[in-house]
Amino acid sequence: MVKTLVIGNYSGADHAAMEAEFAPVFLPDPDALPGLDERVRASVTAIAYKGHLPVGAEHMDAVPNLGLIANFGVGYDAIDTAAASERGVKITNTPNVLNDDVADLAVGMLLCQGREMMQASAWARSGHWARTGEYRLTRKVSGSTVGILGLGRIGREIANRLAALKMDIHYFARSEKDAPGWTYHADPVALADTVDFLVVALVGGQETEKFVSREVIAAMGPRGVLINISRGSTVDETALLDALEAGEIAGAGLDVFWNEPDINPRFYALDNVVIQPHQGSGTIETRAAMGQLQRDNITAFHAGKALLTAVT
Amino acid sequence: MVKTLVIGNYSGADHAAMEAEFAPVFLPDPDALPGLDERVRASVTAIAYKGHLPVGAEHMDAVPNLGLIANFGVGYDAIDTAAASERGVKITNTPNVLNDDVADLAVGMLLCQGREMMQASAWARSGHWARTGEYRLTRKVSGSTVGILGLGRIGREIANRLAALKMDIHYFARSEKDAPGWTYHADPVALADTVDFLVVALVGGQETEKFVSREVIAAMGPRGVLINISRGSTVDETALLDALEAGEIAGAGLDVFWNEPDINPRFYALDNVVIQPHQGSGTIETRAAMGQLQRDNITAFHAGKALLTAVT
Repeated sequence: MVKTLVIGNYSGADHAAMEAEFAPVFLPDPDALPGLDERVRASVTAIAYKGHLPVGAEHMDAVPNLGLIANFGVGYDAIDTAAASERGVKITNTPNVLNDDVADLAVGMLLCQGREMMQASAWARSGHWARTGEYRLTRKVSGSTVGILGLGRIGREIANRLAALKMDIHYFARSEKDAPGWTYHADPVALADTVDFLVVALVGGQETEKFVSREVIAAMGPRGVLINISRGSTVDETALLDALEAGEIAGAGLDVFWNEPDINPRFYALDNVVIQPHQGSGTIETRAAMGQLQRDNITAFHAGKALLTAVT
Repeated sequence: MVKTLVIGNYSGADHAAMEAEFAPVFLPDPDALPGLDERVRASVTAIAYKGHLPVGAEHMDAVPNLGLIANFGVGYDAIDTAAASERGVKITNTPNVLNDDVADLAVGMLLCQGREMMQASAWARSGHWARTGEYRLTRKVSGSTVGILGLGRIGREIANRLAALKMDIHYFARSEKDAPGWTYHADPVALADTVDFLVVALVGGQETEKFVSREVIAAMGPRGVLINISRGSTVDETALLDALEAGEIAGAGLDVFWNEPDINPRFYALDNVVIQPHQGSGTIETRAAMGQLQRDNITAFHAGKALLTAVT
């Protein structure tokens, strides 16, 4: 009897492990759910989910005995948590195992942006270096000031790395944290106004939608650089594009976008943006650890044991 | 009376400061020296040098009252130190003020290489992300093992940054250093064999020429990545190109090359190399600090005071 439904596009290794552990039914995306045989749907008690398409009340109602949605990834904003709560459906995610990778990518984008590494690479590779001399001088990253928006687990990993670059650490969070030597700002606009680099490490979801508002972006000023490794939804992307195109801020490093992967084509015309294809956690090692944690939650659920990383 | 000769291509600000402080004679490169009027040459006691072309005995002999060559940059391998010593010519460089920038670029190249940031950027910008889905998984950088070749001032700055990425730090130096928690290797081949990433932070000059030999490169193995922010001369570049082309090592991040800026065109065909146009110290802030230190050495020399950063 099928107990587990696996939705999304998994690596070969994860697919094989799911097959071996759960003998599940596989679906490409949530909207394929209603097409599934009614008896199969009735047998399912746990869903393994990987993706960014919404999972709402109508999907949950199609699986009447559902008790768990185990999300692949730390951000579970695609899942309607209120609808899940009403139906007694638990949600798990895969936190912590990806913190280091996401923080590494944030640091990489910040250095690429500040030191114009991608433009300098193109300069050298095009033969400009040999023909016309040195690449133009860039800006010093070490010793500059950074603001972390959201000092959760990932935000702290980013701040620790940037502290080793001798950057002056400022942060916004809902309340002041135990973070000696780092400066708390209760107001994101004041934070943006203070720092050279602003790194977004907020959780996704409705609560933080366009939290990096037009006003926050304007406060960054002409030397300001925005780095986002959280969710595209946290930034007012139209305001960001306007500011980048007008030179009202210096640049951006973005791993996440509204409408990704079909991102706004205005980004392609900007050479002051480091664009990454949402690969923050995209290493072989970390994706394997995320898959393992997702499966461990499902195994615990089926065995009636405590969930490892429940979020609701 | 001209006392200072300024050789090289300086920024507008540095040129103006030289003009104001020393009213010097300016030359584009060392080989223009013999063409200079004999009385001018005889009046010169200090040379400000910026460049990578050799400055040898014949140049020094053209300036009979020379007492100082103040080099712009930490690496003074272009200057024949033995010839300078024989003639009682002191040499100064501009150390320390550039350590942070060079270390930042090393970290940036390492992250770019490990996380394939430049390829991922091209993937996203070409529309592949929207058309064909996620970029392939890369390798985890945090938690991996790095070897620093040369634990001098810059090597230490690099190691400190990579320690914050939770990398396991190994190093080679002429002797074991006071570096708790970091692992010393007396043999560079053994170091290369141990680590995932090998970062070259050696001084330049004949002593370290091709120190990263074919044997060291072979020991890195198929997961090995070479990062070089020192001098192109420290690496057997033909051996490196052979290994990169054959996939015998995973990749490289290079800010320095043999024959730069006219680098070996074999590099252009390799997408597993992050190429930077020798911009390690190339920020506005640091180049200004380097120029100031160069001028401060010349001022001290003319005043008969102790040199600030003498290397001989």
